[in-house]
Amino acid sequence: MTAMRPTFEQDVKLDEQPFRLEAGGELPEVTLRCAWYGHPESAPGGVMLICHALTGSARIADWWGDLVGPGHLFDPERYALVGINVLGSCYGSTGPPTIDPRTGRPYAARFPLVTIGDIVRAQALALQKLGIARLSAVVGGSIGGMQALRWAVDFPDALDVCCAIGATPLPAMGLALNHLQRRAIQQDPAWQGGDYTTQPAAGLALARAIAMCSYKSAALFDDRFGRHPDRSGEDPRMTLAARYDVAGYLDHQGEKFVRRFDANSYLILSKAMDTFDLAAAELARIRARVHLIGLSSDWLFPASAVRALAERMRTVGVPVEYAEVSTDHGHDGFLAEPAAITPLLRAALEPTRS
Amino acid sequence: MTAMRPTFEQDVKLDEQPFRLEAGGELPEVTLRCAWYGHPESAPGGVMLICHALTGSARIADWWGDLVGPGHLFDPERYALVGINVLGSCYGSTGPPTIDPRTGRPYAARFPLVTIGDIVRAQALALQKLGIARLSAVVGGSIGGMQALRWAVDFPDALDVCCAIGATPLPAMGLALNHLQRRAIQQDPAWQGGDYTTQPAAGLALARAIAMCSYKSAALFDDRFGRHPDRSGEDPRMTLAARYDVAGYLDHQGEKFVRRFDANSYLILSKAMDTFDLAAAELARIRARVHLIGLSSDWLFPASAVRALAERMRTVGVPVEYAEVSTDHGHDGFLAEPAAITPLLRAALEPTRS
Repeated sequence: MTAMRPTFEQDVKLDEQPFRLEAGGELPEVTLRCAWYGHPESAPGGVMLICHALTGSARIADWWGDLVGPGHLFDPERYALVGINVLGSCYGSTGPPTIDPRTGRPYAARFPLVTIGDIVRAQALALQKLGIARLSAVVGGSIGGMQALRWAVDFPDALDVCCAIGATPLPAMGLALNHLQRRAIQQDPAWQGGDYTTQPAAGLALARAIAMCSYKSAALFDDRFGRHPDRSGEDPRMTLAARYDVAGYLDHQGEKFVRRFDANSYLILSKAMDTFDLAAAELARIRARVHLIGLSSDWLFPASAVRALAERMRTVGVPVEYAEVSTDHGHDGFLAEPAAITPLLRAALEPTRS
Repeated sequence: MTAMRPTFEQDVKLDEQPFRLEAGGELPEVTLRCAWYGHPESAPGGVMLICHALTGSARIADWWGDLVGPGHLFDPERYALVGINVLGSCYGSTGPPTIDPRTGRPYAARFPLVTIGDIVRAQALALQKLGIARLSAVVGGSIGGMQALRWAVDFPDALDVCCAIGATPLPAMGLALNHLQRRAIQQDPAWQGGDYTTQPAAGLALARAIAMCSYKSAALFDDRFGRHPDRSGEDPRMTLAARYDVAGYLDHQGEKFVRRFDANSYLILSKAMDTFDLAAAELARIRARVHLIGLSSDWLFPASAVRALAERMRTVGVPVEYAEVSTDHGHDGFLAEPAAITPLLRAALEPTRS
C-alpha cells in the first residue's frame, strides 16, 4: 500500500525568538514542518491535530495509513488533518541536526532539553500563526498521546476532544529502558559526544532494538519467531554469532532505523518522553472530552496504568472515557491494530454518529 | 548476614582429555571448582547438587544464604550439598579467563561454545571421579534449573528428584534480550574481539543492566523506584545526563557487576542459556520425580511457560508436580523469596515430612 500524500506541506517559523524552553534553555528560532490532509479553510469537521510518536513524522498517512483517506476515519473531505513534526525531531522541524544560526554548525549535543510541554506550545504557536484558533480534536498514541494530553492541560479552551492511546507518564520500567537506550548511543565511540559526522550506527541500532522489545509483547515474539533459527540459515547452536530469528529481526530493525533517524534527536525525544508527567492540579484544568485507550498487552505503558490515569481524571471532574483494545501487539498495537482502534476513535470523535 | 562458609572446597580435574563439546569444539582439559556444605561420606540424606544461575558460583550459601545452614532446608547435617561452578564461568572452573595450556594465553574469545548438556556432563564426570554415583536431588533456578532438567534427561538413573525454578527453554523475548546483551558487550571497543586486558566495562555494565530489567517485574520497579529522581539528588528534568532513580540503580548494578564477572564468560553462558531446549523424546527418558516451580511475575521465563513444560512432561508419562510462587520480584523471585520457595522445595525433597 502506498501511503496517501499530504494535500500540502509547509514550514512554519515561529514568531517567538528566541523560543524559551521549560528546562531553562532557549532556541534562537524554531521552524515546524506541518503536513496537511484536507483544507483547513473549508473542512466541515474542522481541524484535527494528529500527533506522531517518538520516531514518526508530520506525514500522518506514512504511519497511520489505514486511518487516513477518503471514507476512512480521518477523511480529508470531512476534516482538515494536520501532522506537525515535533520540536527536536529530524523530519523537517528544528532539532539537533538543524544548523544553529549562532554558530553555523548543527546543534548536535548542544540542542537544549525539550519537554512535551515545549513541543505542544510550539505546535500551538504554529497553528496560531496559521490562523487556527480551535481544534476539533488532538489525537495520538504513545508520545503522540502525551502531546494530546498536554494539549488538553495547557490549552484547555483550544480543543473539543483529546484522544490518547497507550499514553501515561512513563512507569519505572520505561524510564529504565529509555535510560539504557541512551547509554547504548552515548557509549558508542562514534557518537563523539554528539558531534558525529556519520551516525553512531551500532549504538543507535542497539537502542532501537531494545525499544523494539518494549514495543512488542512476549506472546507476539513467541508466535512470530519462537525459538526458530534466523531465517537466513544461521544455526545458533554452532557459533556465538549465529542468531535465532528474533535476533535477526532486531538487528534488521536496528539497521533500518539508523538509515532514517538521527541519534541526537533520539536522545532528546526519549528524554522528553521520560519527563512527561501530569499533576492532579493540571488534570483539573482539562475541559476537553478525554478518551483514553489502553492496549491489553502493552508492557511499556500498561493498560492498567492508562485505566488508572482515567480514574485520576474522573476524580478531579474531567469527562473521560476509557476503552481497551485486546491485542497481542503490545505497545505497537496503536499502529498495528487499525481495525480495532478505528471504531474507538470514531466513537470519541463523532459521538453522534456512533 | 554473613553467608555460611563451605565445609570444604576442591578443584576436580576431569579425566576426559580433551573434553569434547556438543557444538564440536573441545577443551584440552577441564577443571571444576566444587564447594561442599556437609560431608559426602556421612550425610544421612545423601548428596544434593545445587546448581547456580548465570553469574553465580559454587558457593551456594553466597547466593541462597537463607536456604543453607543447620535447621534450614539445605541442612549440612542432613545432606551433603555440593555446588559446582559451571564450565565456562569465571569462579574457579575452566572458562574463558583460564590459561589455554596449548598457547599459554587465556582462552578469551577462543573458548569454545558450551551447552547446558556439556555443563552437566562435566559435573557428572567430576562427581563420578569423587566416587559419587547417585544424587538425592538436583536443584536450581533459572539456568540452574536448566541444569537440573538436563540432569534428569541425560542421567535418568543418577538422581531421585529434579527441582527447577523459573526454568524452561528460553522464549523468544529472552532470546532477544540475551542477543542484545551480547551485542552491548561486543560493540564495546574495549572488548577487543575478546582479547581485552581490562574488562569492556561500559558494554558489560549495559548488558547487566538490560538483564536486570528482565530479572525484575515492572510492578517491583514501580513500587521501589516509581518516577523518583536519582537518590543522589540529580534532577532528571534539567539535563540529559541527570537520572531517575531506576536509572541510577541500573547503573550501580552494572558497575558492581563489572568488578565481579568476566565479559567472555558472560557471552559463553548466555549463549548456553539460549541453546537449552527439551525435545519430547528427551522428556520421555526422565525417571526422577520432577518438581517445577513458576514465579508469578517472571516475564523472562513466564510461569505459564513453566506450567506448559509440566504439561508436556505429564503427556509423556513423567511424574511431575507444578507449583507457583506469587511474587512481585519477577524472575529474581527464586533468590528473593526464600520464605515462599522453602516449603515448596521441602515438599519436593522430603515428601514424607511435609
